[in-house]
Amino acid sequence: MAGLAKGLAIIELFADGRESLTVADAATGTGLSRAAARRCLLTLAECGYLAFDGKFFHPLPRLLRLGFAYLNGDPLPRVAQPILESIRDRTGESISLAVLDGDDVLFIARAIATHLMVTGVAVGGRRPAHAMATGRVLLGGYSAKQLDAYFSRAHIAANTPKTIVDPTRIKAAITQSRLNGYAINDEELELGFRAIAVPVTDIQGRLVAALSVGFSSARSDNQSMIEEYLPLLKDGARTLGQVLPRDILATLL
Amino acid sequence: MAGLAKGLAIIELFADGRESLTVADAATGTGLSRAAARRCLLTLAECGYLAFDGKFFHPLPRLLRLGFAYLNGDPLPRVAQPILESIRDRTGESISLAVLDGDDVLFIARAIATHLMVTGVAVGGRRPAHAMATGRVLLGGYSAKQLDAYFSRAHIAANTPKTIVDPTRIKAAITQSRLNGYAINDEELELGFRAIAVPVTDIQGRLVAALSVGFSSARSDNQSMIEEYLPLLKDGARTLGQVLPRDILATLL
Repeated sequence: MAGLAKGLAIIELFADGRESLTVADAATGTGLSRAAARRCLLTLAECGYLAFDGKFFHPLPRLLRLGFAYLNGDPLPRVAQPILESIRDRTGESISLAVLDGDDVLFIARAIATHLMVTGVAVGGRRPAHAMATGRVLLGGYSAKQLDAYFSRAHIAANTPKTIVDPTRIKAAITQSRLNGYAINDEELELGFRAIAVPVTDIQGRLVAALSVGFSSARSDNQSMIEEYLPLLKDGARTLGQVLPRDILATLL
Repeated sequence: MAGLAKGLAIIELFADGRESLTVADAATGTGLSRAAARRCLLTLAECGYLAFDGKFFHPLPRLLRLGFAYLNGDPLPRVAQPILESIRDRTGESISLAVLDGDDVLFIARAIATHLMVTGVAVGGRRPAHAMATGRVLLGGYSAKQLDAYFSRAHIAANTPKTIVDPTRIKAAITQSRLNGYAINDEELELGFRAIAVPVTDIQGRLVAALSVGFSSARSDNQSMIEEYLPLLKDGARTLGQVLPRDILATLL
């Protein structure tokens, strides 16, 4: 692994929620030798991405620049933002846009509800795809062979008593979502949390992203969610699919 | 320059608003040889941070992970967010928290106004410090010697007819801001845009960040801005300074 790849792997440890790292933590977390981990951490500190207090390395604001290399460079989140906000204003609920990053769902844009009880998912956040409405929509773009490979790799855990953990049943839910044109998460990720997601496809019908609304299950049941939110999500996805710049789509697929 | 530092310098070119880069662009933008730039770009593509279409490299969502290494790892933006939102709800205007990153102001948290006319500054966005209310508050933490060095490096441009471009006058404004406990930007950055900023200091009195409100100058004049917004900003800054975790402050300074 080149020095660049090693250093980025260490930065990603912080993205997984670590607030500080020792040399030993970085070595363990990435599988690097302590010497290699130490060199990378010191380079990151020299470049101003990490602070070092003699024992722990801490993330510094300059790291934001690296993330915004994506948000500034890719028109997709920019183009999507006003569409997300318009759906948020009509539903009052949090609206998200997500893509697959490896096998994980990665949120790339959000419009946040004004309720006290909002979902904790943030732009840059990642979740396993199979247990989410958004993820099932995105896995709908996988072939049967890709799905088999996904389930051979995936760690499937029951987050709640409602979580479907049988791969055959999850695959059936993915197929059903593809046929329906939407997927639902009914408290499978967390009790009290519900979501509905629709695919965003470009003008050539290719799956680009998933648009979703997530909210407290105390505020809406599955039926009214489908009646009230689904048409707004579908409208938004259609608009977004039409305004997406062509040259960017090629890079996403 | 190590491979890691080179690769990060290339990623930062996208943060400056490039939507795509050729090998030649990356070499020119970083001062690397074409061979070195090419190796870095290909490593970044292999690691899933960039897409390559045969000519251009494009940023991929995985880059977000690197930025959120900061937002997930540093408690400051998390602790600040509800405070920013509370001030936003009481003023109706956009509230920002910023730190210095090198000589630039870097926004690390935002609560966005619901007006149609909102400011375009985003988390991860950067601006030259000297022309902003936020920047003048943060430059207030520089010694006279550090300020001289800053002005010897800074590119000072008149964005509007109101922009102060004389370093002596800017220094006087910084000193005045330090004495007042707030700084004002009265259409110096853009006609029609006004802002007021206050310092956030920790329990030991060290300058940690700046808290600001920015809005259309059509909605408030300087006097009512000071009467209405300043007390709310000062309250918020005091609260934030008190709840900041001690161990993190050490890494910011």
